[in-house]
Parts: sequence; C-alpha cells; structure tokens
Amino acid sequence: DSKLKVFSLNSNPGLAKEIADNIGVELGKCTVTSFSDGEIQINIEESIRGCDVYIVQSTCEPVNQHIMELLIMIDALKRASARTINVVMPYYGYARQDRKARAREPITAKLIADLLETAGASRVLMLDLHAPQIQGFFNLPIDHLVGVPILSDYFEEKNFDDVVIVSPDHGGVTRARKMADRLKAPIAIIDKRRPRPNVAEVMNIVGNIEGKTAILIDDIIDTAGTITLAANALVENGATEVYACCTHPVLSGPAIDRIENSKIKELVVTNTIPLGEEKASDKITELSVAGLISEAIIRVHERQSISILFD
Amino acid sequence: DSKLKVFSLNSNPGLAKEIADNIGVELGKCTVTSFSDGEIQINIEESIRGCDVYIVQSTCEPVNQHIMELLIMIDALKRASARTINVVMPYYGYARQDRKARAREPITAKLIADLLETAGASRVLMLDLHAPQIQGFFNLPIDHLVGVPILSDYFEEKNFDDVVIVSPDHGGVTRARKMADRLKAPIAIIDKRRPRPNVAEVMNIVGNIEGKTAILIDDIIDTAGTITLAANALVENGATEVYACCTHPVLSGPAIDRIENSKIKELVVTNTIPLGEEKASDKITELSVAGLISEAIIRVHERQSISILFD
Ligand SMILES: Nc1ncnc2c1ncn2[C@@H]1O[C@H](COP(=O)(O)O)[C@@H](O)[C@H]1O
Ligand SMILES: Nc1ncnc2c1ncn2[C@@H]1O[C@H](COP(=O)(O)O)[C@@H](O)[C@H]1O
Repeated sequence: DSKLKVFSLNSNPGLAKEIADNIGVELGKCTVTSFSDGEIQINIEESIRGCDVYIVQSTCEPVNQHIMELLIMIDALKRASARTINVVMPYYGYARQDRKARAREPITAKLIADLLETAGASRVLMLDLHAPQIQGFFNLPIDHLVGVPILSDYFEEKNFDDVVIVSPDHGGVTRARKMADRLKAPIAIIDKRRPRPNVAEVMNIVGNIEGKTAILIDDIIDTAGTITLAANALVENGATEVYACCTHPVLSGPAIDRIENSKIKELVVTNTIPLGEEKASDKITELSVAGLISEAIIRVHERQSISILFD
Repeated sequence: DSKLKVFSLNSNPGLAKEIADNIGVELGKCTVTSFSDGEIQINIEESIRGCDVYIVQSTCEPVNQHIMELLIMIDALKRASARTINVVMPYYGYARQDRKARAREPITAKLIADLLETAGASRVLMLDLHAPQIQGFFNLPIDHLVGVPILSDYFEEKNFDDVVIVSPDHGGVTRARKMADRLKAPIAIIDKRRPRPNVAEVMNIVGNIEGKTAILIDDIIDTAGTITLAANALVENGATEVYACCTHPVLSGPAIDRIENSKIKELVVTNTIPLGEEKASDKITELSVAGLISEAIIRVHERQSISILFD
C-alpha cells in the first residue's frame, strides 16, 4: 500500500500537527517562506514519490496568500510525483461568493475550485461548506464533513434544563434542526425583515424561547453583526441566557468587540480557523476538529466509507 | 467592430490611465476592494457585453494579492460576456521560478500561466519576460514587447563620447547586445565565478571598459546585489562613470540603500512596476511604457502586426 504523508502550510500548523499525531505519522518536512519581493518559496525536504499526500491548509486570512501557497504546493507535489494530492481545507475561503447576486459579479468559489483542479489536486476534504452546492463546482471527489456533532457534544455535557436551538437567519434552519435533533430540543428562527427600504430591520422571533437557554448556531461568524443582534433580541424577548456557536470563526473587523459587548455568555467555535492573539476573548471556547479530520483521512486512505462520521 | 475597453486593477493605476488616455478611451468603471475578512470584492460598474476588454495588472508586490485580483476580474468579465479578455501584464511575477533548479521545486511561472487560462484569459501581453521560454507555458496567443528601445533612446540623448554596454551576468548578454546595436557601442560582460566553494566570488570583466562610460543593463533589479557589485567592480577597473538600467524595478529589501551607497550614477527604469514612496531615490529615473503598450493594444485591436514595435 502506498505511504500516507501529511504536510502543513502556514494557515493551521497546530491543527496539522494534531492530525499527524492522531494518525501516527511525522509532519512532512517542508519550508514555506517568501523571497525578498514577497514571492512564495516552497522547499519540500523529503521524497514524496508515489505517496498519498495530505496538505492541511485553510484559506482564511490572509486568504490570497494562503490560496497561492496551496496552489504552489500542489504544483510542487505534482512535479515530485506524488501518487495522490489530497487537499484538506478545514475552511474554504471565498465560499460566500458562490453565485451572481448582482450583475457582473465573479463567482469566486467556483474559480477557486477550478484553480485547485488546474494545479493538480486529486480530492478535497472540507468542513461545513457555506453552501453544499459548492461541491458541484468540482469535478473531483469531495469529502464534506460537518461540525454539528462536535459542537452538540460540547453543549450536551452542560446538561441544560430547558434549551432551544436558534438559527440566526432563514438560511441556517437545516443546521439548527440537526443540532436540535442531537440535543432533543426544539428550534426557533430569527426572522429578520425590513418593513420598508431604509427603515431598520425588525427582529421577529419565530418559536418559543421564553425562560429557555438559547443556543445560536451558524456556519461562519465574520463581523459578528448578525449573531450579536440576534443574541440581544433573544434576551429582550425572554431567553434566560444565550450561547452561540459556529464552525468557522472568521471574526474579522469589529467581531471581538461586538461579542465582548453582547449578551452572548459563551461563544463556542472550532479550530478550522486558528484564533490567534488578535482574536482572543474570555468568552470564546475553541474545540478541535483534528479527531474528525484524522479519522476521515485514515478511512479515506484505507478505502473505507466515511459516512459513519456523520452519525 | 467590437468596442475596446481598458480596466485597471490595483497594481498600476497611473500606467493604466496613461494607456487609456493614449488610446482615447475612459478607464472602465470598476471598484476592486476587500471585504472585512480580506477577501477581494470586485464590482464592474458598466456593461462590457460583447466588448474587447484589456485589463492592466502587473503581478508585482503584493504579488499574491495582485494575482488573485486578476483571476477574479477575469472570472467576472467572462461571466459578464466579454468578447475577449486581454491581460496586459507589464510585469510577470514569479517569472524566475521557471524551472526545477532543485528537486521538488514548483514551476510557479507555469502554474500562473495555467491559472490565467483556467480563469478565462483570451490573450496576454507582456514585457521583457525573464525567460522568453515562458511564452511556451501558455496555449494562448502572447504578445511579448521589449523595453530596450525605450531605455536606449533615453541614453542616446545623453550623447556619451565613449560608451560600453555591460551585462551583469552571462544570462543577460543578448539583451546587452541589443542595446549596444542601437547605441553603436561595444559590449562587456561581468564574468562572476567562485574559485572554490565557500570562497568569495571573483568579478572578472570580459571586454574593454577603461576610460569609458559603462551602462549596465538587466531585465529585473530585485535586491540590487548583483548590479551594485558590478558597478563598483567597473569603477575599480577603470570605467569613468557607471549608469544602470532595467525594465522591471522590483527593488525589494535592501535595494534602495544599496543603490544609494553604490557607484551607480543614475539608475534608469520603466514603470512596469510603480516605484511608490518607499522606493524613491534621487538616483532613479522612471520612463513610461504607456506609449509602447497603447500602440500594441491599438494594433492588436485593429488586427495589425505588432512586429513593427520591435524595430
Ligand atoms: N468575504 C465576504 N464578506 C462579506 N460578505 C461577502 C463576502 N463574500 C461574499 N459576500 C457577500 O455575501 C453574500 C452571500 O452571503 P449569504 O447570503 O450568507 O450566502 C453575497 O451577496 C456576497 O456578495
Ligand atoms: N522571487 C524571487 N526572488 C529571488 N530568487 C528567486 C525568486 N524566484 C525564484 N528565484 C530563484 O532564482 C533562480 C532563477 O533565477 P535566474 O537564474 O536569474 O533565472 C532560481 O533558482 C529560483 O530559485
């Protein structure tokens, strides 16, 4: 059988190390640095001829740098005769640019899929895509894992008395439903609408939240505007306390300030995007997806179905 | 006949404006900004349906950002039904990564070619590629312009008495020969060699430079190590004064300091890469390639040969 190797680029070195440890291999030796003019320089420092190589890289901020690192690494592995090049992308950047919402917009999520194929990727493993349709942008096999079990297990241990799972918008109801099933809880939906143009949005809550512990769930929290407004609306409408969770903590711009100043008691996220120093907050708990991803890699490598990971 | 439009991205707004002015069109309306998380957002603010669109973008620093801007713009233009998408890349970043010099290196110059084709470029116009072989990395038509005439014309007006054109290394002799032909001057070559490993290089000068004005010519000046050492060696060996010139002033890291502290009297460059504030120096003269590029665009659009531009 061919050898499995795990390489890390610059987005998630900690997660990559955890994955390699779980699988029981050393991280592949390579250095990814820049020349004086900012061009990326990659040196793969061990033979990978005939190997099944897994590259761990999220395309989080700095997104364009991380994309180019990934493409150049794929090119180098291809020319070094890797047997398969498996891209492990815990977070898929540009996923929100997945359709022409207005005239003359790019569909960058599709462009990225094409670039990965062109560079030479064999398959891509992703977690909680913003829209599952993005799988169809690829002609490669995609393994699509979900973070809901990890987030649900964490809340399950808290043994809340009376809990409700809340979707912060219409797009996230399916995700809330999945978590509610696991926690045997009801759901509610924040039903935002704008009565007239240029009039503030009304936060209408569909479902019963009074006297309950509310858990808001989303896939991505970026500037945290939606989630913090939702949390405050829940408290105003009688929720006793509000937790929030998401798979991908983008947390850009005012996010940390907004979370600190909101009614959110605790925000639970995963390490698909590392928090780093700038995004530190006592309110945030980080769970690791390393177990999930390494399990998936082992099963893929041993040609077993990974559907068991969704149960 | 279909309409010609010129769009600028963020690398060379000044050059793009000059090109549009020369051609006699307004720059196309578009905004290229970033979302809060650093993802690029492009809005094309006028219809380009059925048009021949020219995008001006050098992939200079920040190179990965500029590449992604270009690819996303091509994607947006393609989906907005441009008739042809013509990429005007005065400077082609990653051109020095054009071969596997060591085991397991990427060939990023080829990767970039593939990415441009995948995104949807119809043709690419470039200036002084580091290696002309890079044209063969594309299956698209390439127009390859040269900067030697612009640089030569500048020096011709100085009416030097006794001048010699010097190549700073073996790779640049053809370029030096071209300039020498235009200035009716002899050439010389800096013939660096390392007598033994871990011993300083010896700067041997092949050709007669004593009592002459020397003009060093290169395609790219990056950290300026080679060119400033060459200039100092020329003076030590009897050149009366030393000028230097190049098409692409990358000028990264210690470049400006080195030039300021060298025997170079004047460095003449073009605006394929804008100098900006950080790269300002009284020793540097910037010439514009706008005339050359706009002439080429007009001839391409009118289906005329551009070979006349090389004479
Ligand atoms: N990086 C980004 N940050 C904020 N908004 C984005 C980003 N990328 C795309 N969008 C916009 O977000 C919308 C899609 O979000 P959604 O409706 O949640 O799928 C589109 O209209 C995009 O223009
Ligand atoms: N951006 C860069 N800065 C400095 N050196 C580079 C860069 N890109 C590639 N190289 C190296 O430069 C060499 C090619 O330069 P050359 O011999 O002038 O064609 C290769 O060995 C590359 O590893």
